[in-house]
Amino acid sequence: MDGLIALAAPDMAAVDALIRRHMDSPVPVIPALADHLIAGSGKRLRPLLTVAAARMAGARDDACLKLAAAVEFIHTATLLHDDVVDSSELRRGRVAAHLIWGAPSSVLVGDFLFARSFELMVGAGSMSALEILARASRVIAEGEVLQLTRAHDLDLGQDLYLEIIQAKTAELFAAAAECGAVSAGAPPERCRSLRKFGMDLGLAFQLVDDALDYSSDSATLGKNPGDDFREGKATLPLLLTMARTGPAEREFWVRTVDRREQTDADFQRACELMRQTGALASTLDLARSYADSAKAALADFPANSWRPALEALADFAVGRRA
Amino acid sequence: MDGLIALAAPDMAAVDALIRRHMDSPVPVIPALADHLIAGSGKRLRPLLTVAAARMAGARDDACLKLAAAVEFIHTATLLHDDVVDSSELRRGRVAAHLIWGAPSSVLVGDFLFARSFELMVGAGSMSALEILARASRVIAEGEVLQLTRAHDLDLGQDLYLEIIQAKTAELFAAAAECGAVSAGAPPERCRSLRKFGMDLGLAFQLVDDALDYSSDSATLGKNPGDDFREGKATLPLLLTMARTGPAEREFWVRTVDRREQTDADFQRACELMRQTGALASTLDLARSYADSAKAALADFPANSWRPALEALADFAVGRRA
Repeated sequence: MDGLIALAAPDMAAVDALIRRHMDSPVPVIPALADHLIAGSGKRLRPLLTVAAARMAGARDDACLKLAAAVEFIHTATLLHDDVVDSSELRRGRVAAHLIWGAPSSVLVGDFLFARSFELMVGAGSMSALEILARASRVIAEGEVLQLTRAHDLDLGQDLYLEIIQAKTAELFAAAAECGAVSAGAPPERCRSLRKFGMDLGLAFQLVDDALDYSSDSATLGKNPGDDFREGKATLPLLLTMARTGPAEREFWVRTVDRREQTDADFQRACELMRQTGALASTLDLARSYADSAKAALADFPANSWRPALEALADFAVGRRA
Repeated sequence: MDGLIALAAPDMAAVDALIRRHMDSPVPVIPALADHLIAGSGKRLRPLLTVAAARMAGARDDACLKLAAAVEFIHTATLLHDDVVDSSELRRGRVAAHLIWGAPSSVLVGDFLFARSFELMVGAGSMSALEILARASRVIAEGEVLQLTRAHDLDLGQDLYLEIIQAKTAELFAAAAECGAVSAGAPPERCRSLRKFGMDLGLAFQLVDDALDYSSDSATLGKNPGDDFREGKATLPLLLTMARTGPAEREFWVRTVDRREQTDADFQRACELMRQTGALASTLDLARSYADSAKAALADFPANSWRPALEALADFAVGRRA
């Protein structure tokens, strides 16, 4: 994705400056905690999507920069609350904020960032973009609650799993791209295509994330592999492996995932079963097909420099190791 | 405040219907948890302020109803997060939601309600109202963090205490009134006056709240009295009592508030010292002066039926027992 990064570099530097300025507050814990998470950030994929969609749709002004910063704030607020909800220990290669500043501060600074994101949207001045991002924020929360209440369900179907990752992850990718296009005044069918691109990219991204949790290491990943297994989260690799190992292993899954009684060796065994049954490969195949579908959504756009860069982003989402 | 309730009854019934419709979700925990808190709600002061300000400023359409529902959602989201942050046990006369559904659900349903509030604001269609409420949401979060990090500070000055309650409580009262006026197209000086009315009313309201925590009972209050003392929250009644009892009682306050080593008798002793030193009376005097200042902010409004009703609301805020 070097092409995209180079193309968007001036815009992303401006987005970065907006992010820094708007995470400031006279209350010292707020910028300290926010900086811990935001400085640890690597890819800034979501704001990159907003900028790329806007510029590809012909945006000439800077409204998309404020929207991009707003998108990153929504994402960061979600991460802060997620880590409290999941009691995660690592995030973006650093100790999770709630372990340093406490869960109450993480919850409240998440609220601060969420509110700031709406202040930034107001600054961008597009009611349509506001509508898209307010709706996305609500859908994300619904997806998180759905995941929380159904997480340990061994019989969670693949459809419901896809519904959860669409809501908690792909919706923000979709909204990030769509609000960029809308703020640029793109025609409705272009806005829909960019929304579709974001949605499919987000699904591919989350599927790969869920696979990496069983196949990477913490140094590469920036968080602990095996977190999903330890939390008993029924992600696609696990659902497929359980289905394919059948009654023979049912007891193993009930103990480790449902009751969460685990030894270190259990995670290794789960990883092995995942490889043996081809569940990891199937998860990555599905990610690949969503990435292809994302690229297809760009077919009607003029082949300017942004289009191949976004196509490469879809390939990156599937090929990445972290 | 019967006059105000009667005047606003048709509007508030419509606000109630909006609240019910927008707290719905296909994810069952969300309406269940939201309903637990919202059905327990009594006064709906903040949305009432929005409706009253809008109608007093001549609003003829229904945009203010959506804004009023949005204001109540911001408030409810804040309560959900607050109760997690403070580990409170009672809220609005009911067991706190996080004790029934768990802290993670409370955090995420708070996020849902917060996002919904922005969807409602978009529906109201006023970018100025959105700006006011987005800013208020951010200021509230700042106030909560400030309170969290300075809560046990025995040397918290009265100024900083007022800054905290202005941010965490009065700002939403101010924004609720202001956004009603703005959405009604009121001239700027009228919007400023209604903002001032809301701000001073909110300060009076919180001061009385802080006094009631040392002078009421849980059946009347709908939450446990003494919560502030047990959490070591440096509110005005406590700050004044500590200042007035001087070095003689310093050790008592350091143990009970700073180190939070308390017996049941300690709370009774604190209440007694508060009465003896006149700290409770001084807190209520200050609340009275803010209520008077709130009423004065309405001086330039025509003496239609809304104005005396809002003046009575200011008196109610000071005279209430819960």
